[in-house]
Parts: sequence; structure tokens; C-alpha cells
Amino acid sequence: MNIILLSGGSGKRLWPLSNDVRSKQFIKIFKTKEEEYESMVQRVYRQIRTVDKEATVTIATSKTQVSSIHNQLGDGVSVCVEPCRRDTFPAIALAASYLHDVLHISEEEPVVVCPVDPYVNDDYFQALKELSGIADTGEANLVLMGIEPTYPSEKYGYVIPKDKNVVSRAAAFKEKPDVETAKEYISQGALWNGGVFAFKLKYVLKKAHELMDFTDYQDFFSKYDTLNKISFDYAVVEGEDNIQVMRFNGQWKDLGTWNTLTEAMEEPSIGKAILNDKCENVHVINELDVPVLCMGLKDIVVSASAEGILVSDKEQSSYIKPYVDKISQQIMFAEKSWGSFRVLDVEEESMTIKVTLNPGHGMNYHSHERRDETWSIISGRGTAIIDDEKRTVEAGDILTMKAGCRHTIMAETELKIIEVQKGRDISVNDKRKHELPGVE
Amino acid sequence: MNIILLSGGSGKRLWPLSNDVRSKQFIKIFKTKEEEYESMVQRVYRQIRTVDKEATVTIATSKTQVSSIHNQLGDGVSVCVEPCRRDTFPAIALAASYLHDVLHISEEEPVVVCPVDPYVNDDYFQALKELSGIADTGEANLVLMGIEPTYPSEKYGYVIPKDKNVVSRAAAFKEKPDVETAKEYISQGALWNGGVFAFKLKYVLKKAHELMDFTDYQDFFSKYDTLNKISFDYAVVEGEDNIQVMRFNGQWKDLGTWNTLTEAMEEPSIGKAILNDKCENVHVINELDVPVLCMGLKDIVVSASAEGILVSDKEQSSYIKPYVDKISQQIMFAEKSWGSFRVLDVEEESMTIKVTLNPGHGMNYHSHERRDETWSIISGRGTAIIDDEKRTVEAGDILTMKAGCRHTIMAETELKIIEVQKGRDISVNDKRKHELPGVE
Repeated sequence: MNIILLSGGSGKRLWPLSNDVRSKQFIKIFKTKEEEYESMVQRVYRQIRTVDKEATVTIATSKTQVSSIHNQLGDGVSVCVEPCRRDTFPAIALAASYLHDVLHISEEEPVVVCPVDPYVNDDYFQALKELSGIADTGEANLVLMGIEPTYPSEKYGYVIPKDKNVVSRAAAFKEKPDVETAKEYISQGALWNGGVFAFKLKYVLKKAHELMDFTDYQDFFSKYDTLNKISFDYAVVEGEDNIQVMRFNGQWKDLGTWNTLTEAMEEPSIGKAILNDKCENVHVINELDVPVLCMGLKDIVVSASAEGILVSDKEQSSYIKPYVDKISQQIMFAEKSWGSFRVLDVEEESMTIKVTLNPGHGMNYHSHERRDETWSIISGRGTAIIDDEKRTVEAGDILTMKAGCRHTIMAETELKIIEVQKGRDISVNDKRKHELPGVE
Repeated sequence: MNIILLSGGSGKRLWPLSNDVRSKQFIKIFKTKEEEYESMVQRVYRQIRTVDKEATVTIATSKTQVSSIHNQLGDGVSVCVEPCRRDTFPAIALAASYLHDVLHISEEEPVVVCPVDPYVNDDYFQALKELSGIADTGEANLVLMGIEPTYPSEKYGYVIPKDKNVVSRAAAFKEKPDVETAKEYISQGALWNGGVFAFKLKYVLKKAHELMDFTDYQDFFSKYDTLNKISFDYAVVEGEDNIQVMRFNGQWKDLGTWNTLTEAMEEPSIGKAILNDKCENVHVINELDVPVLCMGLKDIVVSASAEGILVSDKEQSSYIKPYVDKISQQIMFAEKSWGSFRVLDVEEESMTIKVTLNPGHGMNYHSHERRDETWSIISGRGTAIIDDEKRTVEAGDILTMKAGCRHTIMAETELKIIEVQKGRDISVNDKRKHELPGVE
């Protein structure tokens, strides 16, 4: 199966675990058999591999998420990066040309497009395989997954199938309704539109060429910013008469709020937490190194990270977004392709961060114009290059870099560094990349 | 007025703002006229000065609190330090000999002993002055303050006066009763025993000499550890027939739990906090640099510090102690006489802390045997002495000290330092003090 996972979204509704650089799909919250925690992206990727070992998985995403994806799924994963945000149709069209021109997938092959963050079981991915098979028959131009509704939700669009068969023609599409209208739709046999489409690659490539004149993926990529924002539903689905819909009645959850996310937790807490016996329906997700103590709480979620602390009634947690919008604060932690960093201290003219480099990884070779930096290696060993001079480094070493000095460090084993930045105008934008010198 | 303030207590019940080195009286929680926050110690000290400019105030406390006291009240405050904990009678006796032998107060003068942490108005300290005046008349050996009860509390001892006069003889003392017994006492006219005594200095000095053979304060101090723990109530009050009690009916509160402490807060939050409009009777005290967001909470206190995070139903917050007892964690912040420090990061073989030195202050000249240290000066300027060599330092300077290296730093302006400690066996006990060399 060829599958495109759409990985988008911002991090407002699951603050403080998500932020501008970490969307909800990267929060590690699901316990694995190995007693570790995996994120939505990791879970979905693992599930696809379980159902279809040979699947060609491509993640269509924005620049801001690439580091997290490589950090969580490894460097081998296929990622199609949108140069800028242009909604789902341009994203899917770009990914289709990526599959065709970069991965050399035949235009006769079926492709499934699926969001990266449904909370589902393996049967869902089994259904995606079936969907792919149906698209492969060519009976319809588009095959959609319709999810059997469990309640009259206002959060989803609806699709009304022509009949009650597992696979049938789509009779009508409906936008997100109010509860009363949703009830009516459901009485007519409507299904939730789960945002899953299957098609032959050539179908979407043709639509892409209708949208814009381009020669190949590279050309499409370079012209991407000239496109307007437009959704796949609006641009393709609404104008298409030849659509099939396949029913799915397994578990399908959208864990978009703290309330729904905590329902999926196997245990009441992740991280250091103590709940006294007067706590009822309380969940704690604590990414800090210090404990959270909960006494006599009911129906509450507590979440703490380097970004801040949320204490919310579970019901109320759905209304968090406007409050988070008002919090203007620099990014306090991030996952990068080479590891991660966390801000430890911020002063007017200095910043202290902890950098963790994964074994075998290194930063870009770079310099800053308006700040000096000091690295204290606190664990591990590796190689640093400072102004083209290479040296091995290990725990206990101190390296100082004045403004203008080119520097990088590569980890042999996991490498942890305390970096003290000192300067009048510290900014993430004050960074110049350089070519690595010809050293081994 | 001569006043001895007893400053004891541990920090369990107001965790995470109090800890093993910061008792509740040092938490800055009371808003001043200058829109700043002061602690219980600062508030009481200020109130005494307001009522009696000339008061001789001595704080009787343990070694662990000396740094915080000097940090909050300045270097000028008179402190009588117990070499070890031996309960209130030895502490008061030691303070009495300190007043006599160090401050040269005549043994004929009256002295008032008072806890350092009552939440009261100025009229309370006015009453202490009156108490001192009554003791001065010598009509009784001991004069106690009896507080008019506002409810039948189980938390306090009771004193039953002979009559209803403002000052009368004490007829009986009662230990902390249950609620029913407390009601009965109150119907008999009982008052709360507020832990306040006044006496002529010679009275307690005589009792001290009965307790132990000693020549003067220094001698008492050196033999202090040979004493047994014994309370002033048990050792002195219970055996004394000649006691007066003075009524006090002004505000008197013991802010010993989160529930009572938050009642004294003027505003719902201190520090970075956002409460949505569905919050009712919620208090937030946040000492971290990142925000706390509260949604739809009722009757809850949230408190966050470098030590941890508490989220508690207010009623339940009284039962916090056994849970905090179970938290074993190193001290994450502390106030020192020279400034303060905060732990930023802990790894197996390293620790990163932020040190703030107040202007004009410096650390001890010291060395460590089992760790290297690096100082990154992030703001201010001062003077460092490294292995007897003196140098001026300022923001941007990096100093490295190998294990065994003697070092100190003195702040000219407020000086902030990121200190990275690196070693196999990092411990607060790995510290050797040295004599400062003969440099200016």
C-alpha cells in the first residue's frame, strides 16, 4: 500500500505539551508493550508497519515538523515537505508528484491519504488496505472512508451513502452540522467523513496539473508558494461525481483535546506525580523533573512542561485555545533531527539551554553575529569543529565561541551540553550556516 | 521593648514553596504598599518597628535559617543561633543569655517571647508592648497573652483566666482538646494560648541556670548539644504558680496550611497565572518563570516552585504532610546570606545551578575535592579569587575551577552566574572552606 500521512496542525489545544514547534501528534503519551511511551505519529507508523510491512509511507508536512518527524521516526522515513502552508489540496498534490517523481511510483498505483493522528486500532489500517484495493479496481475516481457515527457530533463532516452496503456510491456530502441536523443525517444513514481518501496516483496528478502548470516535483516545489490555500474537499471531492464510500465501524477517535486525550491514557499519570486517594478521574502528564502532587481533585487534568502548567477541569479544557493564544513566550523546548534542546534560564542578555545530541548526529556548522557561547560538555563524547579546527571532546570539556566563530559538534555517544549564550540581542534568527571544512 | 522572635518549623505543610531549607515564614506572599511581596518574617519585623522604633529584636533560630534571615532582613538583624534543635525552653534560655551577655541587657528588664509567624495587625504588637509593661511591674513571674477564641479549635492549647478582666491571674492550662472539650473550655471563659510570654530577664536566666551549669552565653552555647529537648510550656509554665494572662481580641491567625495562607492573599494569584472566568475561589502562587493556566477550577490552590507543583482542593491541603514526606528530592532553591541559588539541571555526574549574589556580598573562599566547576558570568561585575589570585570579572567572563582549586567571587553590582558542576560524586558536603589570602 502507498500511503500519504498528512501531518499538520498547531499545538494550541494541548498546551503546554504542544507548542508552536511541537504539534499534538508528537506528544509521547501512549504506553507501548515495552513500557515506554510513544507519540501519535510513532503509534500510527508502527500500526501501518504491523498491518503492511511493505507499505510505502510518506509523511506530508511543513518545515516546522521535519525535525520532530526524523527525531521520532528516524532518518529513514520518507518526508514530503511543503515549503509553506497551502491547505490540503496543494499538500496532497505535492505529495502525489513526490511519490511519482521521487519515489518513482507508477501512476496506475493506488494511493491512500490519511491524517497522521487518528487514535485507532490495527483494524483501521486493515481497512485502509481494503480502501487501497477498491481504488485499484478503478470503479470510482475517489474512495472515501465513512466512519459509523457513535453520536451526533458537530465536529465532523458527513457523507451520505446511496445504500447500506459496505461499499456504496456517495450520494451527498454535508459540512459540519449542528447537533439536530447531525441527528437527521444519521437517521438518513450518514457516516462521518474521516478525512481518508484513496485514488489512483494519476487521478490526483491530473488534478494537480489542472491546478498549476508544472513539469515535475522539483518544479512544483519551487512554485508552491504561488498557490492559494484550498482544501482537498473543496477542490476535488465536491466536484467529483464518481465517488465510492467504504464503511468502517471499528474504533476511531480524534484525540484533539485534553479531555479526549486523557481518555486514551492507560494510567492516571505520566511522569512524576502523586495523587492522593481523594482524587477522582484525575490525569497528570508531567514532563518536568520535579513532582506534581494532587490532593482531593475531581475531573481534572494537570499537565506540566518547560512551557508552562495547565490545571483544568476536563470539560473546560476544550476552551483552552484563546487563553493559550494570549501567552506569548519563546519556545522552551524542541525536538530536532539531531536531538533536542530545553531552555533552562532566560535573562535579558543571556540564555542557558541544555542540548542533547543523539549518537551519530551533529548540528549544522554555524556562527552567530551577536552572541558568544560557552559549551560545558556534561556527558558523552564526540567531535567539535571550531573555526575549521577539529578536536575530540568529552564530558568535562569547556568550549568557548566568541561571536562570529564558526562551530559545530557531532555526537559519538549521546552528548549532553550546557550552552550559555551571552549577548545583547539573542535571537534564533541570528544564525549563519557554513560549509563544513574538508576535515574527516 | 526587648523581643525574642522564635523562628522554627519545617517546610512540609506549605510545599512546594517551603522546603527543608525554607520554612513557611520566608515565603514572600504578602503584598506591601510598595506593590512588592514580603514574607511573614519581613512583615512581623516591619510591624514591630512600626509600633516600637526602639525595640531590641533578636531572632532565635537554627543554623539552617540564618542565611534566609540575613537575606530577608539584612545583615544588621540580631540573631541568636541554636547550635542544634532542643525545643523551646533551651532556645529561649539561650536567647536570654544572649540578651544578657552579648546585648548587655539588664536582668531587670522585661523581655517578650513571640513566634515569628502570627498573621496579625499592628494592634498585636501594641499588645506585646503592654505585655512587656505588665512584666516590668513584677506582679507575676510570667505574663501570657490569651487570645479570644473565634471557634472551638483543636489546634491550640487553652488558658483559663481567673476572671474577666483584661489582665487576670491564670487559673488553669489545657492541652490541645477535641472540639467538644474546646467548646466546654470556651464556655468557662478559656482563651487560646498564643505562645507569647513576657518575663523579667532574670527570671528565665535563673531557670536556665537550674537547667544547666554555665558561666555565660558562650559557655551555654558550647554545652547546648548536651541538653535534652524540652518545651517552655512543660519546663517553666506548668511549674509556675505566679502567672498573669492578658486578653487580646484583635486579629490573630496562624497561616500554617495552604487553606489559611491563601485566605490572607489580597489577589487570586502571585506570579505568572491565567484564570479563566469559570474559576471560583482559586489561588495560584507561581514562582516559576512559565505561566500557570487554570480552567474551570473551584476551591483549589495551585502552587509551583523549582521544587515541584501542588494542585489541591483547599480543604484537602491540610493533609499534605505525609505525601510531601515521601518526596525525596534534593533542594532545588535556597536563599543564602549572600544571595540565592536555583538548580537548573541535574544529571548523574553534573549539576547546573544559577547563582545570584547580592551587591557587596561574596561566597566563602572554598574548594571541592570531587568536582570541577565552570562559572559563566551572565550579568553584573565583581571580583573573583582563584587559587589566591584576584581578578575583576564581568558579564561574559568564563572561569574554570578544577577540583581542589580554591575559589570565591564577590559582587560589586548584582552578579548572576551559571555554574556547571562536573564530577562523579557531587554533594553539598564536598566543600572545604579556606582563609582568604591577604589581598584587598
